[in-house]
Amino acid sequence: MFQSFEVTARPEQGPPRLAALRDELAREGLQGFLIPRADAHQGEYVAPRDERLAWLTGFTGSAGFCAALTDVAGVFIDGRYRTQVKAQVAKEYTPVPWPDVSLSAWLKEQLPNGGKVGFDPWLHAAGQISSAQKDLEGSGIELVRCNNLVDRIWADQPVPPKSPVRVHPLEFAGESAENKIKRLANELQDADRMAAVITLPDSIMWLLNIRGSDIGYNPVAHGFAILHSNGRVDLFMAAAKLTGLADHLGPQVTQHEPEAFLASVEALKGKVQVDPSTVPQIVADALGDRMVDGGDPCALPKARKNPAEIAGTAEAHLRDAAAVAELLCWLDAQEPGSLTETQVVSRLEECRCRDNALQDISFDTIAGTGPNGAIMHYRVTEETDSRLENGHLLVLDSGGQYLDGTTDITRTIAIGEVGDEEKACFTRVLKGMIAMSMLRWPVGLAGRDIECVARLPLWLAGQDFNHGVGHGVGTYLSVHEGPQRLSRVSHVPLEPGMILSNEPGYYREGAFGIRLENLVVVEKAPTLAGGDGERAMLNWRTLTYVPVDRRLIVVDMLTREERTWLNAYHRDVAEKVRPRLGEAVQLWLDAATAPV
Amino acid sequence: MFQSFEVTARPEQGPPRLAALRDELAREGLQGFLIPRADAHQGEYVAPRDERLAWLTGFTGSAGFCAALTDVAGVFIDGRYRTQVKAQVAKEYTPVPWPDVSLSAWLKEQLPNGGKVGFDPWLHAAGQISSAQKDLEGSGIELVRCNNLVDRIWADQPVPPKSPVRVHPLEFAGESAENKIKRLANELQDADRMAAVITLPDSIMWLLNIRGSDIGYNPVAHGFAILHSNGRVDLFMAAAKLTGLADHLGPQVTQHEPEAFLASVEALKGKVQVDPSTVPQIVADALGDRMVDGGDPCALPKARKNPAEIAGTAEAHLRDAAAVAELLCWLDAQEPGSLTETQVVSRLEECRCRDNALQDISFDTIAGTGPNGAIMHYRVTEETDSRLENGHLLVLDSGGQYLDGTTDITRTIAIGEVGDEEKACFTRVLKGMIAMSMLRWPVGLAGRDIECVARLPLWLAGQDFNHGVGHGVGTYLSVHEGPQRLSRVSHVPLEPGMILSNEPGYYREGAFGIRLENLVVVEKAPTLAGGDGERAMLNWRTLTYVPVDRRLIVVDMLTREERTWLNAYHRDVAEKVRPRLGEAVQLWLDAATAPV
Repeated sequence: MFQSFEVTARPEQGPPRLAALRDELAREGLQGFLIPRADAHQGEYVAPRDERLAWLTGFTGSAGFCAALTDVAGVFIDGRYRTQVKAQVAKEYTPVPWPDVSLSAWLKEQLPNGGKVGFDPWLHAAGQISSAQKDLEGSGIELVRCNNLVDRIWADQPVPPKSPVRVHPLEFAGESAENKIKRLANELQDADRMAAVITLPDSIMWLLNIRGSDIGYNPVAHGFAILHSNGRVDLFMAAAKLTGLADHLGPQVTQHEPEAFLASVEALKGKVQVDPSTVPQIVADALGDRMVDGGDPCALPKARKNPAEIAGTAEAHLRDAAAVAELLCWLDAQEPGSLTETQVVSRLEECRCRDNALQDISFDTIAGTGPNGAIMHYRVTEETDSRLENGHLLVLDSGGQYLDGTTDITRTIAIGEVGDEEKACFTRVLKGMIAMSMLRWPVGLAGRDIECVARLPLWLAGQDFNHGVGHGVGTYLSVHEGPQRLSRVSHVPLEPGMILSNEPGYYREGAFGIRLENLVVVEKAPTLAGGDGERAMLNWRTLTYVPVDRRLIVVDMLTREERTWLNAYHRDVAEKVRPRLGEAVQLWLDAATAPV
Repeated sequence: MFQSFEVTARPEQGPPRLAALRDELAREGLQGFLIPRADAHQGEYVAPRDERLAWLTGFTGSAGFCAALTDVAGVFIDGRYRTQVKAQVAKEYTPVPWPDVSLSAWLKEQLPNGGKVGFDPWLHAAGQISSAQKDLEGSGIELVRCNNLVDRIWADQPVPPKSPVRVHPLEFAGESAENKIKRLANELQDADRMAAVITLPDSIMWLLNIRGSDIGYNPVAHGFAILHSNGRVDLFMAAAKLTGLADHLGPQVTQHEPEAFLASVEALKGKVQVDPSTVPQIVADALGDRMVDGGDPCALPKARKNPAEIAGTAEAHLRDAAAVAELLCWLDAQEPGSLTETQVVSRLEECRCRDNALQDISFDTIAGTGPNGAIMHYRVTEETDSRLENGHLLVLDSGGQYLDGTTDITRTIAIGEVGDEEKACFTRVLKGMIAMSMLRWPVGLAGRDIECVARLPLWLAGQDFNHGVGHGVGTYLSVHEGPQRLSRVSHVPLEPGMILSNEPGYYREGAFGIRLENLVVVEKAPTLAGGDGERAMLNWRTLTYVPVDRRLIVVDMLTREERTWLNAYHRDVAEKVRPRLGEAVQLWLDAATAPV
């Protein structure tokens, strides 16, 4: 199985490690050390050797950091993890609500007389450090580069991953690596930049049409690359990983060992483009004033999926929908109280594995029943595993990695007889998802200009949810991919080919959770009769085809247009997914997609 | 009458003046000179002596500027004025679509070999100049301070206005000037600033509880002020304007002649707060590195209306609604084809004047019938005056200045039998206005986070409009007041007490226009049963009470909730406004507010 239910960290592991770290602080003459969740590639998932934050504190969330000072250790966590962190860290750690409280504000409070706080310059983005330094001006607090003190005390730290890299076929990539390199090198030339330093693994995978498996759930290999404006690429990745790839990579790509990376950066001439929000501080140091903020050159081209990628993703979704339908059919046949969350997760993985196309799951399945559904990023473990009781809502958020695409789907399922309040909230979330699905909007707008559309039905009832409406999604790459987002903070204009999630939710702590998620792709909207002729508009095409639980819908709360949308969606689900199902599941699907 | 229908500028006046200006360019050794619409106070309206842009080019819009070079003269106008400018300027002028084309981009194109472009440092905000200078770096184009070359050639330029200033009574202001000064001085102290320079007339009027009449439509007097952190104010305004005000201004305010302003700024010690987006470049020059960007200290406090201001504004709106109802009743009784736009404007002003409370109109009434309705900022003149024909839509956007508040209301009226397409578009605009009116949203959001709500019904039909959904409004001050806006570019969080317009529209060039506008005030939303208890939310209270033309509504296009809102609104209109009307208008109102 891809997913494990193991408890990977315990609160009690933290304090002795913190004590050892404080010995190192004393040795180095530091008043503190920063331990981010991130590795040098700033991804959502890290290799076991980079799980420093969990190792030191017990907190296993996918974002956050610890500022360990001599007498206090703050664990900075965002809104998603406020509940989880309390259960995961010992009392020696102080959870800090972030970003409400910034690192610099907290340091100033804790170190009123100033002091030196160390950080590993590989693990922090340059933008992060420079902005913290600016905020700390005049406080007497200095951020100082140092070796990683956690690595020093972590006796059995795992070694870096060395998984083999494989070719991502043109059939799925839709554009040759040679072409991508040429295209991006020309853009660098036009912008008068000699090179770009690329430190995000998914950018490198996309650019070179390769995939790896150095970390879980994201088919990437760790490495760095320098794209030169003359169309040459230096790839810093262990030769052992690249066996047999020389032909694919071609003459324009030169392999180097990762250890050679920094010296090569130092040797670059002219202006060098980086993304300061992700490039390690140590790379910025090496570049000095040759560094130009131009973003990761792969980010936008990667986000604009080409027809082959969109077609592949659509096919992956239909394959995935059949697996999810099979699971839902099975789930509906079980008595309330007879299953636990881990059984649902295991069975879902079985359903996804059945046709051998599944390469990996795209993240740990979230299966939260009853009150667990209110924990937005719930990962079920042997210890939290709960029974699906009558009256529960089950939030089931999962996805698969297939060679042709990445899926991510959430459905909320009724277990037995569910209360009216839950149904009303579910229907509001559904109305929000439908409103976003039906939207057309003028070209040039960003996620922040339209994201409230999915919230309106909740707002009108005095409700809301504390996460964005959607994130970008890769094609057989990261399930969370920028730069586009359906979020109040995203100013990146939406463009045809971008794939995003549309996932409003509602969470009542200690009671229940609701989330509905379809993936959607941006398309040019067809011209409408009577519409403004000269006004170019965009709309979504839905990629996810799985029934919405009709038992939870208060039909009277839907407008005519919403009912029409839902019934048409279910008709499409039946038409597209039915042929992929066995007879029993077909019968279930017919009922699940009947008009409301 | 407050409004004139005179044509105040003609295309043919421009070319000889441009020729004279070019002689001055040659004399000064300049390759160009910038002529903004703005005066030193950056307001929407300027005194006759500051109408340099109109005088030179013929263009009379309320925003824009001219860059007059030796062989080309660009007139930069925003989306609202693309049509108008073509009719107003001679062929010697080149309209430039702004901000799509920035001043610096245009200058770089026109002056490939660089050159010196002069500007009057009183008339350009520091932020504007520094951003243009940054964009021009490396181009060889230099922006140089110089005397105003237009003033030099404008033989009969009017003198500056010298209208008397009067007290704005505490009854309407709701807070004494003494208190406001103390409150803001304390904030300066807390922020470690020695003073703030205030150059916006409405800020000075608000701070000192005074009003003036130096310009049309905005009851302000021109002047400058320095607010010191010790609670003293230096007011730079001709003594002749302030006759009899010494007692009101009190010992904390010292009058100076305007000519003393710059020397006093130069003499300031310590950090001085200004708003770089409005402070004249010459003030920034005088301050040098003592200048701190902290915004106009009056802007937010002025925007958060106190209970007296809100109550006054509500009363002003009811008084104004009675006048508008009387006009609409009269209008409905006229035969299609029997009236022209100017007759409607004149009659509306008569209705508003009837009870002697009207101090001024709050802007030139926009009365655009048929195709003229599609010109968003249409000002009817003797030459454009058009007949209200059968089948027309009449866009009527107007407002009054009363001692207790400022109004701004738009209704679109059916003239005779109107086509189905117009009705469908009208109903979409109405749906947008209702959706915004019904909204509740979480505390902390800005205009940009919610403004799309008023556009959705149009978007779904492939339509949209090219202006913001709403602007802030003052109380017996400017009808356009920041910093809050219902606009995609406004990141200022909405707060209780802020008054804004809610005015979606739709415009089909050459055919018809539609706009509906109510003023609304932000309030804390009441807690709803079942809503998130801990989530503070805001909503609107409507201030405008004038019927929406029922003849233009396609009732089938409204949802149940929209019909309920509209009928409740019309019930309120009847209840609140009926007692203020004569018998004939009461009968009209009864029909106009009947349920749909």
